[in-house]
Amino acid sequence: MMQSSSPRPIRQSGSRRIEILDQTALPHHEAWLPLDSLAAAAHAIRVMQVRGAPLIGATAAYGVALAMGEDAGDAGLSQALQQLAATRPTAVNLHWALARMQARLQSLPASARETQAWQEAGAIAEEDAAQNRTIGQHGLALIQALPRRSATLQVMTHCNAGWLATVEQGTALAPIYAAHAAGLAVHVWVSETRPRNQGLLTAWELQQAGVPHTLIADNAAAWLMQQGQVDLVITGADRIAANGDVANKVGTCLKALAAAHFGLPFYVAAPCSTLDFNCPAGSQIPIEQRAADELRLVQGLDDTGQPTTLQQLPPGEAVCNPAFDVTPAGLITALITERGSCPASPAGLAGLYPELAHG
Amino acid sequence: MMQSSSPRPIRQSGSRRIEILDQTALPHHEAWLPLDSLAAAAHAIRVMQVRGAPLIGATAAYGVALAMGEDAGDAGLSQALQQLAATRPTAVNLHWALARMQARLQSLPASARETQAWQEAGAIAEEDAAQNRTIGQHGLALIQALPRRSATLQVMTHCNAGWLATVEQGTALAPIYAAHAAGLAVHVWVSETRPRNQGLLTAWELQQAGVPHTLIADNAAAWLMQQGQVDLVITGADRIAANGDVANKVGTCLKALAAAHFGLPFYVAAPCSTLDFNCPAGSQIPIEQRAADELRLVQGLDDTGQPTTLQQLPPGEAVCNPAFDVTPAGLITALITERGSCPASPAGLAGLYPELAHG
Repeated sequence: MMQSSSPRPIRQSGSRRIEILDQTALPHHEAWLPLDSLAAAAHAIRVMQVRGAPLIGATAAYGVALAMGEDAGDAGLSQALQQLAATRPTAVNLHWALARMQARLQSLPASARETQAWQEAGAIAEEDAAQNRTIGQHGLALIQALPRRSATLQVMTHCNAGWLATVEQGTALAPIYAAHAAGLAVHVWVSETRPRNQGLLTAWELQQAGVPHTLIADNAAAWLMQQGQVDLVITGADRIAANGDVANKVGTCLKALAAAHFGLPFYVAAPCSTLDFNCPAGSQIPIEQRAADELRLVQGLDDTGQPTTLQQLPPGEAVCNPAFDVTPAGLITALITERGSCPASPAGLAGLYPELAHG
Repeated sequence: MMQSSSPRPIRQSGSRRIEILDQTALPHHEAWLPLDSLAAAAHAIRVMQVRGAPLIGATAAYGVALAMGEDAGDAGLSQALQQLAATRPTAVNLHWALARMQARLQSLPASARETQAWQEAGAIAEEDAAQNRTIGQHGLALIQALPRRSATLQVMTHCNAGWLATVEQGTALAPIYAAHAAGLAVHVWVSETRPRNQGLLTAWELQQAGVPHTLIADNAAAWLMQQGQVDLVITGADRIAANGDVANKVGTCLKALAAAHFGLPFYVAAPCSTLDFNCPAGSQIPIEQRAADELRLVQGLDDTGQPTTLQQLPPGEAVCNPAFDVTPAGLITALITERGSCPASPAGLAGLYPELAHG
């Protein structure tokens, strides 16, 4: 497979170490962090130095490889799988990657595990990159066929499902990058995505790629649709249930409801590692609750340009902070995967993934 | 009319001056600002030291009174009305209050205008306070009749439509205060309300009143409804068109769409000064676009407890920042006004306001 020159948020550094682009510092500072232990990998996932379902999966795979350098015995493998699985509950890519690492490693002698783990983690990463490029092409075909209101195709997205959320290209942004590369005039409405403001990551990515875009408050989504300023909505996913329901960053369901109301197509782009055929419906997907500080505190730059944190509300205020919500399949126009697009339904998914679908 | 001891965000200070609670400093600092000129009143409205449709109306009325102390001639009156009308476009209460002041003053000799203007502005303020108390009672009756999922009534609101947004009590929060006073167990989901974070004003108000509440990101609204944790949604309004469409703080429409999808009642509480029978439909309501800095910058406290401002995103990023959106009448269960509740429809409004409805 050809190695691409596209930017990546994760890279191997030497034979036994990886580096990640610290997403808690972006867009203000671009800093690479070394991960050289299981504990460092688990920490990076938990505190969202890496985030995005496919990137969480790839980082977890590398985390297993790092763990095999610490203790490649059965106990070490089991402990690594458990520790990484406990980092974040919603993105199924994490469990998919860990199950794949386990299947590859558990029958090997301990002495062979570390080398094989690095190979398998590398394969997971390269496959994700390749799948996203394919998602980009399938998404581009859908996009090109859409009616648009003006010469520029107006796309709305939510959170960050670009290359920062994956190994390369992204899921929701892959078709946008493909459209931009194909010379299609495209403009992206970038939702801030409170409370973690991952929209700022999307804006940063698009800025670097030269893709025209505009930042909006999450609240502005319906207004833009009311004004006829949106042609389609496209997001990534953290888990797709067997019935086509999609768990994704909290707020996705609100955009899907608005798109349905205003008659706009709503696409979800994700690789096969995001599919969970063992989960019958979205109501069964565990939704992560994150700390109140994500609403209490805001990170940014002070007036001297130094990174700092502000308190936005009094410490005593109670906060409820679900990280994801579930978009019912009925609100989704199509899923876009590396195998093409399909309806968000059991039949649609079985059509693309007959070997994975149950019964 | 009995003077209430309820808190107010605006008060007369001496015979020719008002003071306002600076809402750009809340919830971090409670500071009263004197307004002693037309220019100061117009500025306070424009920069949102006062905000909330009914309070904007009352402040504008006092602004005319202040202007009459500067130039009570026809040119002065005309200039004051124009300057105040230009501050913010969406809340119709502003134009309603100015029209009422104009009607009261224009036929008077200049020498009589200042005294009369203070009287009329005071009357507007007291009427707003009285109407909100009545809205609270009508809303309470609706709330008490609702089915609820648990012993505690779970209410979701958006932005701030409490006493800070009015002269007293608030519109959306008036029924909640009435319920709390009546001993009904109530809990409020307070939406952050990006980009200006007026949810923090609501949290501050509710904290002071001892009403249980929890802050959420705007994005979390659908998730809470999915989880069965919301019994009703209630918001204020900045303008209600003749067909029942409602312009309110941006993001309101997303909550209304979610409430409709999850089968929950969605109420809009507003006094008659928010009704615009001259506006046939929501699509005719001018929607204010505000500065990009509202998304770029975040205000709060630094780690020494000093008020400060952070930069959240690079200055070069394009921003689109509509301050309001329009919720279609069909998504609104009922309007709650000082005359009672009615369907959000021409017939519903004509039933409550036969003297205002056209033809």
